[in-house]
Amino acid sequence: MQTYLLGLDMGGTNSVLGLVDDNGNVIARESIKTQAYAKIEDYIAALRDLAVRLTEPFGGLQACRAMGAGVPNGNYYTGNIENAVNLPWHGQVPFADMILQTLGIPCHVTNDANAAAMGEMKYGAAKEMRNFIMITLGTGVGSGIVIDGKLLYGHDGFAGELGHVCADQSENARQCNCGLKGCLETYASANGMARTAKELMQKGGGKSLLAALDPEQITSKDVFDAAEKGDEVAKQIFDYTGTILGKQLANFIAFSAPEAIILFGGLTRSGHWIMDPVVKAMNESVMPLWRGKVKVLFSGLKEADAAILGAASIAE
Amino acid sequence: MQTYLLGLDMGGTNSVLGLVDDNGNVIARESIKTQAYAKIEDYIAALRDLAVRLTEPFGGLQACRAMGAGVPNGNYYTGNIENAVNLPWHGQVPFADMILQTLGIPCHVTNDANAAAMGEMKYGAAKEMRNFIMITLGTGVGSGIVIDGKLLYGHDGFAGELGHVCADQSENARQCNCGLKGCLETYASANGMARTAKELMQKGGGKSLLAALDPEQITSKDVFDAAEKGDEVAKQIFDYTGTILGKQLANFIAFSAPEAIILFGGLTRSGHWIMDPVVKAMNESVMPLWRGKVKVLFSGLKEADAAILGAASIAE
Repeated sequence: MQTYLLGLDMGGTNSVLGLVDDNGNVIARESIKTQAYAKIEDYIAALRDLAVRLTEPFGGLQACRAMGAGVPNGNYYTGNIENAVNLPWHGQVPFADMILQTLGIPCHVTNDANAAAMGEMKYGAAKEMRNFIMITLGTGVGSGIVIDGKLLYGHDGFAGELGHVCADQSENARQCNCGLKGCLETYASANGMARTAKELMQKGGGKSLLAALDPEQITSKDVFDAAEKGDEVAKQIFDYTGTILGKQLANFIAFSAPEAIILFGGLTRSGHWIMDPVVKAMNESVMPLWRGKVKVLFSGLKEADAAILGAASIAE
Repeated sequence: MQTYLLGLDMGGTNSVLGLVDDNGNVIARESIKTQAYAKIEDYIAALRDLAVRLTEPFGGLQACRAMGAGVPNGNYYTGNIENAVNLPWHGQVPFADMILQTLGIPCHVTNDANAAAMGEMKYGAAKEMRNFIMITLGTGVGSGIVIDGKLLYGHDGFAGELGHVCADQSENARQCNCGLKGCLETYASANGMARTAKELMQKGGGKSLLAALDPEQITSKDVFDAAEKGDEVAKQIFDYTGTILGKQLANFIAFSAPEAIILFGGLTRSGHWIMDPVVKAMNESVMPLWRGKVKVLFSGLKEADAAILGAASIAE
């Protein structure tokens, strides 16, 4: 009998559950609102109902071997969600245990960037790779680090928080939600780039197309659209953002000497506008022995599938 | 029959070969001058003579199972010394192969910091640890990173060059021998600290004890001696050095979430003068989830033995 994996992509807003076959196809998917469940027990029950519905045409829940879940603050070692700030459930949530008890299916959890890295290795741009770093450029900057074909979890399960290395040690460094100042994600995420645009426009945007927008509402997509139209300020924003990211990638290379760095998430839709300054700054800032040798690639997964495939990749 | 390992600590100046028993005792050692051998074949022949002499009272060369060598630019994967700048032999040197052919003993090579990390795990402060980072603070800053009980070599064998992450992105950042600017080792090595002292004294040392010395000749030991005597400028030099190192350790923690960071090498002889600012800056700069949780330890090995034990640790 063909069997399947469940992949859960849990975000602060939506949770998408997908059914994945052994060829890496997401053959069914549905979502629920994460915030609609004040109690974790109710959320788990809703997930069970969803899983039953999704699997019904494919042999039912018993055709599922395992579930993998990409969740905020998911600890692979314990199976718990630990002190997540963007979820309704606080403290320690024994998520994997609850899935096993309620759905009868073994479950592994990790954070979304780790899940994305595994998805990339199993189905995407890192298929033949044993050593690479996945960097997600979305609301924040996340990372999943693969060493010798295995995700790096570290001593406590939380390794790979590369969005929170310090990219700016100056006094004017940006405040990060994590409590630190100057974190990479305050500059190199989609939100960070929007923040750069907003700051520039508030100082006076000159002839930039971005000056016509409400600074508070500027998104990374607006900067992309302006760059595509030849807007010099928008191009400078990409250069600024990509340079900051590229310099930090050079430090990451000095740590783990990866074969490639794979970029994923909203900001990568900007294509060469972000890629070119990243690669340039990375190669200028890295030791000569690695100059021009470490690939920087965009994710090889369809964005809609990536999180589910990634989650399913850690299921077993 | 009891058998032994050979550990070779090859530096740009001296090479020390030691015989190590299974309890981690260096039972014999001798050294030769690395620079005395313009041809690698002659160096290998001298090593063979040394090994024969060292092992003679203990059953001869046939009692040696393997050799491990900590060498500049040693590539664990290939067994080669690759493009070392401080050695008489340039390009690719098939060191491990030559040892096997000439001594009849299998050999592994890696760089000295990686060897130190393995020595620490097998015999020193990291005995029960599976995830830690070794930082050597000597002429330069080296590192050996242990993940899940194994040395991190990366895609090309050269992972763990943490002395060359960028610690200063400003225009005035120090020039490093590697070609980059602002590298950690230009500040946090024994030489880097001496450079800090020299720069301060050249600006005018005031009442500092260090002002009495030739600025070109100041060593980290001089700074230590002055701090011990209550010299405020010397204390500030330690604070400055330790703070730069501690901030970078915070970034390393965000990468691999180690159980501990182990400091080794000349600068650690300064004890609390260097440890206190390192720990303070590290905890101030690290994400809250790791604050106060990652141990910073000094090496648990006798300095004279550490390099040999470390090298022997990678022998097999």
